[in-house]
Amino acid sequence: MNRLIIIGGSDAGISAALRAREIDPSVEPTIVMADRYPNYSICGLPFYLSGEISEWRSLAHRTKEEIGQAGIRLLMGRHAKAIDAEKKRVLVVDEEGRAGELQYDRLIIATGAESIKPGIRGMDLPGVFLLRWMDDCFAVHQWLTEHKPRSALIVGGGYIGMEMADALSFRGLSVTVVEFAETMLTTVDKPLGEEIAAELERRGVSVAIGVGIESIERDGNGLTVKGSNGFNARADLALVAVGCRPSAQLATGAGIKTGIKGAIKVNQRMETSAADVYAAGDCAETWHHLLKNYTYLPLGTTAHKQGRIAGENAAGGNREFAGSLGTQAVKIFDLVAARTGLRDSEAQEAGFDPLTNQFETWDHKAYYPGAEKMIIRITGDLATRRLLGAQILGHYKSEVSKRIDIFAASLFNDMTVEQLSDLDLSYTPPLSSPWDPVQMAAQDWVRNLK
Amino acid sequence: MNRLIIIGGSDAGISAALRAREIDPSVEPTIVMADRYPNYSICGLPFYLSGEISEWRSLAHRTKEEIGQAGIRLLMGRHAKAIDAEKKRVLVVDEEGRAGELQYDRLIIATGAESIKPGIRGMDLPGVFLLRWMDDCFAVHQWLTEHKPRSALIVGGGYIGMEMADALSFRGLSVTVVEFAETMLTTVDKPLGEEIAAELERRGVSVAIGVGIESIERDGNGLTVKGSNGFNARADLALVAVGCRPSAQLATGAGIKTGIKGAIKVNQRMETSAADVYAAGDCAETWHHLLKNYTYLPLGTTAHKQGRIAGENAAGGNREFAGSLGTQAVKIFDLVAARTGLRDSEAQEAGFDPLTNQFETWDHKAYYPGAEKMIIRITGDLATRRLLGAQILGHYKSEVSKRIDIFAASLFNDMTVEQLSDLDLSYTPPLSSPWDPVQMAAQDWVRNLK
Repeated sequence: MNRLIIIGGSDAGISAALRAREIDPSVEPTIVMADRYPNYSICGLPFYLSGEISEWRSLAHRTKEEIGQAGIRLLMGRHAKAIDAEKKRVLVVDEEGRAGELQYDRLIIATGAESIKPGIRGMDLPGVFLLRWMDDCFAVHQWLTEHKPRSALIVGGGYIGMEMADALSFRGLSVTVVEFAETMLTTVDKPLGEEIAAELERRGVSVAIGVGIESIERDGNGLTVKGSNGFNARADLALVAVGCRPSAQLATGAGIKTGIKGAIKVNQRMETSAADVYAAGDCAETWHHLLKNYTYLPLGTTAHKQGRIAGENAAGGNREFAGSLGTQAVKIFDLVAARTGLRDSEAQEAGFDPLTNQFETWDHKAYYPGAEKMIIRITGDLATRRLLGAQILGHYKSEVSKRIDIFAASLFNDMTVEQLSDLDLSYTPPLSSPWDPVQMAAQDWVRNLK
Repeated sequence: MNRLIIIGGSDAGISAALRAREIDPSVEPTIVMADRYPNYSICGLPFYLSGEISEWRSLAHRTKEEIGQAGIRLLMGRHAKAIDAEKKRVLVVDEEGRAGELQYDRLIIATGAESIKPGIRGMDLPGVFLLRWMDDCFAVHQWLTEHKPRSALIVGGGYIGMEMADALSFRGLSVTVVEFAETMLTTVDKPLGEEIAAELERRGVSVAIGVGIESIERDGNGLTVKGSNGFNARADLALVAVGCRPSAQLATGAGIKTGIKGAIKVNQRMETSAADVYAAGDCAETWHHLLKNYTYLPLGTTAHKQGRIAGENAAGGNREFAGSLGTQAVKIFDLVAARTGLRDSEAQEAGFDPLTNQFETWDHKAYYPGAEKMIIRITGDLATRRLLGAQILGHYKSEVSKRIDIFAASLFNDMTVEQLSDLDLSYTPPLSSPWDPVQMAAQDWVRNLK
């Protein structure tokens, strides 16, 4: 039972291989990967494209040499074309089109996700880009350096859209962001999205909301982008970032069951419907700690965790994925937006009776220089008083992301909102208050019950 | 049952009064306080003395007017001289020496702590100061502005000593810190204390360790300070900050039981041994969540919590103090040191079988500019794998204090070290890694079990 094949060399795949070796050093993991960039931090692409990182190789969590030294074999530039779950074989084709077969005892599918390519006319024009993998990144980078665009239009106000608005502004481009919804960053509530839109505008980014892009056309050296409500703009470069979907074709082709949004069905041991086949990361469903059900929540953190669990179990261990809370953070210019758990609408859908309360305070004692305003939204269940979720927007030096983690740790332990006041949190005037903002917000939520 | 008398107008006293009013608006809290500075943030004194805060009044958490508007009566400049727990009366003397009596239905003792005045010859000389209350602060400030000292010697390398070394350096003084123990900040482990000593020296602060100060003498316009191992130094100002002890004389005089270090014995409802008499804050013992026993741990955060509980119960509520973990953080120049829970020696004394492991990593993905090293020490129990405590030292922009709070929330919920890896913590490359440093340190602890 020592031949472990892993398809995919990004977060989930590498985590699985490393963990398998830790659990059982006799396991020989082989990673089959389409490109030549194992273990790259694709979350870091905007910072390379901004120019803040000069060397793209520094985006690797580990070098190929380090991966090799960990006892992991990398088969790069090989497309896994099919899985025969009966015969436990993977059909692999190399860059010259030569086919081969790999026999496995255990298989982990970690094929990730792919950018959604919306039905916009002109998507395939030169100067129009998607952004997910290293090759996408190189294509954008090449365009930036060769064509020196002065303006960019970003379709989609999600994480990638926000980070790229920041990145391309940093690079000196004039940026427009177009979002179909009512505000930016719809993964957080509207009042926070509006603050983010205001920050974008303060930084010179044009913001268009409620606009669906319909077409992109070449126009001399640039592009003309048209959309609903008479939207019409010129730009030298367009980036389309409207989300992703699981890359699960290989699994479906092998008769492995898929579920939500086409993601591979797994249990908490990360086992698929096929014997000895595991899946992890953005290609797979995710157990949600609060919903007590599966969902689709592709995040790098989750990919690392699920990969680790899959690797442990594939190597003979026995561990369950404890569940996601959808905890996430993003830096947009000087702001950080973060969330964990459920929002009001999600909580309602899940059958809770939620109350969401917004609270605003300083990140630390206002008498100490440099205090910044912080907005905290707490969602709790009226019936049980249980904490269901939180969102924070604040300055990027205000420890927003680790404050959301206090909520995340509390959610993990099924605490009530009121119990947050019992937590013994640290305080020094330059960094907090005797009641941390997290606790003040919790007390405000309780006060609003009456 | 509406006459609530509170002795002490600092964190615990004000928190108690505010909470009592929230619970029962018919309660009329009267606060008897010796000075005229209700609800001042004494944790902020170093930042006033550094010059970073120009107006001392901004140190008030609330103004007198705000306290009055909350329905709280302030009797300032009144010393509570005695409690008659039988007749439910407090003997009060005003600044002119006039005595009076206050009748109570419920009483909360929130008299705080006082600086320890060590047996150093010359402690009462002009230019030698303690620092705890506003009056101490004004005395130091007056000396700083009138005498314009160019050098300062600080006796004691604890929190106040460290913050004042930073503050007086910021003000332009040449500073020496003398500590009796082997390194600075003995509330954290020696490797962290040594890093702090190195930071002090980088910032031009002279550090003397293993020195017991014996005498201070006037020497022209300055002071000569002598100690063990031939220590001999001149300074224009000396600050003695060697810790504090509970101010519990009023309680002992009334026959109320005291315990550890002379602190007032309380239960988790903050009730003392006398009927209808509560105590809270630095004058009282503290229930420790991990030790499941009482200890003495004077901290502003705890004072707020205990005051709130005492106020709630005094107003007819029923709430227990959930316990302290001794969570604390301090900023020293560019570093923040933070801890929560038990250290190795404390865990051993408490009957655990601890393993403490030190781990060093970057505060965020190293490819993103500005990454700083962070040291994390985890103490866990070998028998149960339970998390017992953590210490972090890092840059003050590295979210050290809210990272310690992730440990604090985990300790509160009795988690194992291994379970830290199950937490769904936030990640974005400028602020963390897919496994937060907290989780990497936990995984390293587990790895070292073998």
